[in-house]
Amino acid sequence: MARAGNLRIGGGAPVSVQTMLDSPLSPEGAPGVVSMISDLAALGCDMIRFSFVSPDDAAPFSYIASHSVIPVVADIHFDYRMAILAIGSGAHKIRINPGNIGARWKTEEIVRASLDHGTAIRIGLNSGSLPQSVRGMKVPEAMVSTALEYLGWFESWGFRNTVVSLKSSDVAETMEAARAFRRLSDYPQHIGITEAGDPVISAVRSSWALGTLLSEGIGDTVRISMTGPVEEEVIAGVELLRTLSLRKKGVRIISCPRCGRHTFDTIAFERKVRKRLLSLDKDITVAIMGCLVNGPGEAGNADYAVTGMKEKVYLYRKGRVLAAVSPEDAEDALFEAIADE
Amino acid sequence: MARAGNLRIGGGAPVSVQTMLDSPLSPEGAPGVVSMISDLAALGCDMIRFSFVSPDDAAPFSYIASHSVIPVVADIHFDYRMAILAIGSGAHKIRINPGNIGARWKTEEIVRASLDHGTAIRIGLNSGSLPQSVRGMKVPEAMVSTALEYLGWFESWGFRNTVVSLKSSDVAETMEAARAFRRLSDYPQHIGITEAGDPVISAVRSSWALGTLLSEGIGDTVRISMTGPVEEEVIAGVELLRTLSLRKKGVRIISCPRCGRHTFDTIAFERKVRKRLLSLDKDITVAIMGCLVNGPGEAGNADYAVTGMKEKVYLYRKGRVLAAVSPEDAEDALFEAIADE
Repeated sequence: MARAGNLRIGGGAPVSVQTMLDSPLSPEGAPGVVSMISDLAALGCDMIRFSFVSPDDAAPFSYIASHSVIPVVADIHFDYRMAILAIGSGAHKIRINPGNIGARWKTEEIVRASLDHGTAIRIGLNSGSLPQSVRGMKVPEAMVSTALEYLGWFESWGFRNTVVSLKSSDVAETMEAARAFRRLSDYPQHIGITEAGDPVISAVRSSWALGTLLSEGIGDTVRISMTGPVEEEVIAGVELLRTLSLRKKGVRIISCPRCGRHTFDTIAFERKVRKRLLSLDKDITVAIMGCLVNGPGEAGNADYAVTGMKEKVYLYRKGRVLAAVSPEDAEDALFEAIADE
Repeated sequence: MARAGNLRIGGGAPVSVQTMLDSPLSPEGAPGVVSMISDLAALGCDMIRFSFVSPDDAAPFSYIASHSVIPVVADIHFDYRMAILAIGSGAHKIRINPGNIGARWKTEEIVRASLDHGTAIRIGLNSGSLPQSVRGMKVPEAMVSTALEYLGWFESWGFRNTVVSLKSSDVAETMEAARAFRRLSDYPQHIGITEAGDPVISAVRSSWALGTLLSEGIGDTVRISMTGPVEEEVIAGVELLRTLSLRKKGVRIISCPRCGRHTFDTIAFERKVRKRLLSLDKDITVAIMGCLVNGPGEAGNADYAVTGMKEKVYLYRKGRVLAAVSPEDAEDALFEAIADE
C-alpha cells in the first residue's frame, strides 16, 4: 500500500480517481487553482497532479499543496532538482520516470528526499519513452522489467511508498503490461491509457481497458486521460467506478438520446445541469427524459426525474409528480426538490 | 441472421454500428438528410434510424430510404398504421415494441407487411415500457420472456427476419438480459444502454457494458445512445469495435491530454481535424502530440504524427520528419501528406 497525504492507494483501499491540471503555476493564480481543485473534488476527484518544471513553481505549488482539499502530485521530467524542490514544497506524491532522470544517483537523491518527507512516488513508465536497454523486448515485458528494476533500486534505499504505472497508447499493450506486472508484484498500480484521444474516444478506449482490469482486481488509482476539459476526465473516471460498483456514492444521471419523439430539449437541459448535479453530495439517480414513451417508466425508477411533454416539464420524486413547471423553471425546481430532501 | 437492405445482422456478419437522427422529416429537408447520412456513413455508421410518427413522414422517408447509402430504419410507437406506411415507404427495417402496438392482430398486420416487402423487424424492448403481465418478474427475465413470446408470434406467422433488443438504463440489467436471451435464442441482438446520458457518461457506461458483451460474442449491431451530437454516437460505436478488434479499417487517433509541458494546443488541433480524419477511407494511426517528452516516441509508432515544439509543428511519417510548419499550416500539411500516400 502507498500513501499520498491522507489518501491510501492499494492494499484494499477504494480505487481513487485522479486528473492533471495544466494551469501554469503562478503565485497570483494559486488561490484560483485551489478553488478549481475543490470543484474537481466535488465531482469526485481524489488526487490532482501538476507539472513542476522550474524553481519558480515552488512557491505556488507549496501554496496549492497546503491549501488543496485533496493530495497534490508533482510531475517531474528530466531534472532531479525539480523533484527535490517539489518534495520540499509539500508534494504529497511525485511522479518520475527514473529512465529520464539521468544518472542513478539522481534518482537516489529523489528517493531519499521522499523518504525524509513521507512523500509517495509513482514510477511512471510510458511505452513512448522506455530505456534503450529494453528496446528489443515486447512493450509490455519491457515496461514490467524496467519497473521491477527501478523498484529494486527503491527497495535497496529502504523506500516502499511506491505506485507503478505502465502506460501505452495501445489498449492491448496496457492491459497486458498491467496484468503481467500484477502477476509479479503487489505494488499498487496507477492505470490509464496514455494519449487516449478526445473525450468520447478516450472514454471508449479507457472504459473498456480499465474497466476490464478493474473487474479483474487490477488497478488502485485511475486517470482517464483526455485531449479535452479536465472535468470530463474526472466525470469519466468516477462514472467508470460507479458503473463497476467500485464507488457507491454520487449522483447518477440517466438521460434520453435525441429522437424525433422529443418535445423537450434534453441535450440543452442536461448540459446546463450536469456539473451542478454531479457535484452534489448525494447518492441519487436523476432521470432527464424528453418524451412520454419511456419518460414516465424511467421516472418511476429514478429518485428524481424531469420529463418534458409539450410545453410543460414534469418534475417527479420516486415516480410521483411533484410539480409541472415551464422549461425555464425546471432547473430551479429540480435543485429545490433535491435540497428539500 | 437478419438482413436489412444490404446489411447482414448476426450469423457471423461483422458487428454493425447504428445511430438515430432526430431531423424532422420534411420533403424539403430530405436531400440534406441524405447528405448527412453520407457523412455519418463516412465516419463508419452502417444503419440509420428515424422516428416515423405521421402520414406526412411517408414522402420524405421514402426519398431518404431510396437515396441513403446505408439501410434506413423506421422507429414506430403505438400506431401500427405508421409501421405499415413505413414498410410501404421502403424502410429496410422497422423497430417496434409489440407491447405498445395494442391488439395482437395489429402486430400481425405489421409482420405480414414486412414479410411481403422483405423488411427486417427489430423487436425493441425497453425496461421502462414492459407489459403489465411481466411486472412481477425481475427486469432481465421479464424482458427475455416478453421477447420470446413475441418471437413465437412472429414465427407462427412465418417471419424470421428479426433482431431483438433488450435495453435498460441499468448496465447490469442490460448485460444480464442480453446474456440470458443468448442462452435461449440465436436471434441476432441489437445491444445498447438506453438513456445512457451525455457523450462522456454514455461512452463510459456503454463501452464497459457493450464491450464486455461483445467480447463474450454477444451482440450483432450496436448503438451507443447519447444525450448529445449524433456523430459522437457513431464515433463511439466505431471506436469501441476498433478497440475490441472487431473492426479493422479506419483512422485511429491518439492524442495527448493537457499538461503543463505543452507548447502546442493539441485540444484545439484535435477538435479541428477529428471529423475530417475519422471520415478518411484509410487504415492509419495518427498521433497528435504536444511536447517532446512522449511526442517523438509516439510519433515513431504512428503512421502520421503532428508534434508541436515551441513555435514549430513537426509532421512525421512513420517516425521520420516530413516537414516543420507553423501551427496554422499544420492541418493542410497533415492532410496533404496523407493524400499523397
